[in-house]
Amino acid sequence: MTLRFSASGLEIPGDKPSRNPLHHLPVLLDTVLRGLGQVMFQNNSYTGLLFLVGLAVNSLLYAAAALVGAASATLAAMAMGAGRDSVRAGMFGFNGGLTGIALLYFLEPGALTWGCVLLAAVCSTLMMAAMQAAFSVWKLPALTAPFVFTSLVFFLAAARFGRLETTGGLPTAGLPAQASVEGVVTMAAVGEGLFTGIAQVFFQDSVFSGVVFVLGLLVASRRACLAALLGSLVGLLVAWLMGAAEPAIRAGAFGFNSVLAAIALTSVFLVPGRAVAVYALLAAAVAPFVAAACAAALEPLGMPALTLPFVLVTWVFLFACRGLARIQAGSSTAPRGSQD
Amino acid sequence: MTLRFSASGLEIPGDKPSRNPLHHLPVLLDTVLRGLGQVMFQNNSYTGLLFLVGLAVNSLLYAAAALVGAASATLAAMAMGAGRDSVRAGMFGFNGGLTGIALLYFLEPGALTWGCVLLAAVCSTLMMAAMQAAFSVWKLPALTAPFVFTSLVFFLAAARFGRLETTGGLPTAGLPAQASVEGVVTMAAVGEGLFTGIAQVFFQDSVFSGVVFVLGLLVASRRACLAALLGSLVGLLVAWLMGAAEPAIRAGAFGFNSVLAAIALTSVFLVPGRAVAVYALLAAAVAPFVAAACAAALEPLGMPALTLPFVLVTWVFLFACRGLARIQAGSSTAPRGSQD
Amino acid sequence: MTLRFSASGLEIPGDKPSRNPLHHLPVLLDTVLRGLGQVMFQNNSYTGLLFLVGLAVNSLLYAAAALVGAASATLAAMAMGAGRDSVRAGMFGFNGGLTGIALLYFLEPGALTWGCVLLAAVCSTLMMAAMQAAFSVWKLPALTAPFVFTSLVFFLAAARFGRLETTGGLPTAGLPAQASVEGVVTMAAVGEGLFTGIAQVFFQDSVFSGVVFVLGLLVASRRACLAALLGSLVGLLVAWLMGAAEPAIRAGAFGFNSVLAAIALTSVFLVPGRAVAVYALLAAAVAPFVAAACAAALEPLGMPALTLPFVLVTWVFLFACRGLARIQAGSSTAPRGSQD
Repeated sequence: MTLRFSASGLEIPGDKPSRNPLHHLPVLLDTVLRGLGQVMFQNNSYTGLLFLVGLAVNSLLYAAAALVGAASATLAAMAMGAGRDSVRAGMFGFNGGLTGIALLYFLEPGALTWGCVLLAAVCSTLMMAAMQAAFSVWKLPALTAPFVFTSLVFFLAAARFGRLETTGGLPTAGLPAQASVEGVVTMAAVGEGLFTGIAQVFFQDSVFSGVVFVLGLLVASRRACLAALLGSLVGLLVAWLMGAAEPAIRAGAFGFNSVLAAIALTSVFLVPGRAVAVYALLAAAVAPFVAAACAAALEPLGMPALTLPFVLVTWVFLFACRGLARIQAGSSTAPRGSQD
Repeated sequence: MTLRFSASGLEIPGDKPSRNPLHHLPVLLDTVLRGLGQVMFQNNSYTGLLFLVGLAVNSLLYAAAALVGAASATLAAMAMGAGRDSVRAGMFGFNGGLTGIALLYFLEPGALTWGCVLLAAVCSTLMMAAMQAAFSVWKLPALTAPFVFTSLVFFLAAARFGRLETTGGLPTAGLPAQASVEGVVTMAAVGEGLFTGIAQVFFQDSVFSGVVFVLGLLVASRRACLAALLGSLVGLLVAWLMGAAEPAIRAGAFGFNSVLAAIALTSVFLVPGRAVAVYALLAAAVAPFVAAACAAALEPLGMPALTLPFVLVTWVFLFACRGLARIQAGSSTAPRGSQD
Repeated sequence: MTLRFSASGLEIPGDKPSRNPLHHLPVLLDTVLRGLGQVMFQNNSYTGLLFLVGLAVNSLLYAAAALVGAASATLAAMAMGAGRDSVRAGMFGFNGGLTGIALLYFLEPGALTWGCVLLAAVCSTLMMAAMQAAFSVWKLPALTAPFVFTSLVFFLAAARFGRLETTGGLPTAGLPAQASVEGVVTMAAVGEGLFTGIAQVFFQDSVFSGVVFVLGLLVASRRACLAALLGSLVGLLVAWLMGAAEPAIRAGAFGFNSVLAAIALTSVFLVPGRAVAVYALLAAAVAPFVAAACAAALEPLGMPALTLPFVLVTWVFLFACRGLARIQAGSSTAPRGSQD
């Protein structure tokens, strides 16, 4: 079998695949990296590699969790017979990768937690297959919803399962109350938030990780890279204008949902153009409101909103454009190789 | 261009519309009023005008909010290229109008809140377009769900956004507990509740507003008017029987969802007849249970249920009738000019 | 009219049915018993009869509630013109039966509560018809979702309706917190939990009821019987491994959702085989996580999760298999006589 490196990573020409994934270790690795790239919609293994590097510079633990999660989810998809092209494009890796990081972020490391990472990665694949089937009547992408729902199940279960131990990372359960304006937002905080907003897509509160993630986008798509930066900025500015707490702004908490929505709407699912650019900016501006609302709605459960706000906003904007003549969806809202 | 007044308001015969909405100010105004009429399913600008009068007699602030909300949502729909007939029938006005009132009711008035009214009205239009697209596989109407979800996002966001200030109007966040029977319901309370139940469709706790709203229905449809009065009465009586608090009964809190469900099922989406009348009465009787349940479910968040109970009950009854030979849906469940 | 007893109960050969259900009392009774059998997917009146016996040996009250609920829901379906074959197979009985038991379990007995049982049974039929219509775009079964949602509405409504009195059976409302491992699980507890896990499908915390329910399954399907026992065991073992509280394990709290999911996936909706057996075991192992998560998510409302975890897990696994070549759905995911 001949392996060939192309602009976006490894390609397999063969039509008689061996059933044993170990025979294909390079291809498997390439697929897993594409899965990490798909976290920001890039079917590109170099992007995935840079995302992995961006994780590793901040924390080897999360890099390992992302790799294990993405690999387990991908192998589970292969073992259960998911669509070969879809698996190859990383579509069954990104939710597993994010689930792996999330579980290590919010649960105490240990044998049982790593076992849960494997189980949760398999569940993320089942959720992905289920949502693809359910959403096929609308031709709507599942986005990162499988990651969000799978992770929340494991975190919530800790309230009944004594051996599933949560870290201090989870929000404190409480009844939501009117916020007050906390702290003063400086230009330094804005600069930091611009990049942490991108780093938070992978749960990293690190400017450096954010910069490496931007590079990862750049090698795949300048448009996606620009959308990510503008999305992060818009999310941050709206949150600032509305009086969000300074630490949250600086940590990028109001940026990552806007980042993902901006990439999805400008460079993946819609036909690019001036109207679509405005439409994506509107989505990036609305995302902080939805993020604040989701965080408050989950406060009594002490649960994080993860990327649920991005998922909800993007679904609404993708559905809405079908009835709006000025905004054109792509030939398919779920083009080959992007998140469907 | 010739404008012509008909039984249900202004009509535009022209087929070469100017792109500038200001050239069409009378038509725009008529469209906005139809939008207000559509809050109770009436594609009729006189009804909308009377609804506006009913608001103004109680509070000029809410009348202004309704007008601004409905106009912004309608203009946003035009600007983004929503279906012309649908816009003209007021389908993109009613959610915006209700959202405008709700935001002014639950958020402190001020420049930022009025800015939020504009943004929320645009969001209500996006939600409407999105839900129309999503629900098209079922041919089910979105009803006032876009208003409910959009408004809740803005109220919940106040828990993270210090400059988004809530009024004392929101319920106190708490854990739901067994209610006890409070107060004695007199015939005067029943009489009051009959009309406040209709006034509460627009958040008004005023018998006078309720009477004007009834007149607004009467100019458009005697059937809808009768359904509204019977719906309010049934909702009130069921709540009374079940031991709801007297102030809530008198204020119409258990009436407005029944009012809307009764109008929708008797005069909009189903073929009228004896079986349908019984079916609609059943919906009006079930609505107070769903209203009580929704209020309790949202208690930990300190959020109002708005018209969510009406939406849920009506969706269930519209879906259910498709499998029930005795209840016939109209030629379309979303006839021209009614809420789709 | 000739009535004939077959392996699975009473059959009606006639094609000119009388409109009066009393003329058909034996047929009605047979239909109601099939409805009880359908709680565990068995279109078999002997199974239903044994389930009724299993209830009666523990509590005559719950047996009566199940009978009244299933009969009311079935009669409501007949009166409103639901599909005759579907009604005859008990499809409009099982949600009503479960709703009847649940209301008597969580609400104080009394005239008003029995009135609510009748109303809730009618609502369960409406919900069933509605969900069948809504889910027809996916050909997905409604399962016991109508029972879950209808029951939760009545329990939640008690927070506003003073005359709707809850028992001490409901969970205490509170904010979820990290669990600790409570108690030591003995082999005796495992043995007890194996059968209470099956008994809990009908809210019974009784080994004896569980044994009778197993016999009920056995007369209809050895495969379903085996699936129930294995499902209960897997659910229990996973909960034990994860450190669930001993009393909950012994009472079967982590078993019943696995029992239902295992029956559904091995003997109703999928083509049996080795891969499907593993798939169903995976579902039975995931169900305790989802059960723990649902219980925690409903803790602020003080509400029980009922069979919601089974419903969610089964929906996900039924959807997912459509994209997984190794797992084959049956010719229809909603075969005649099983829960659709």
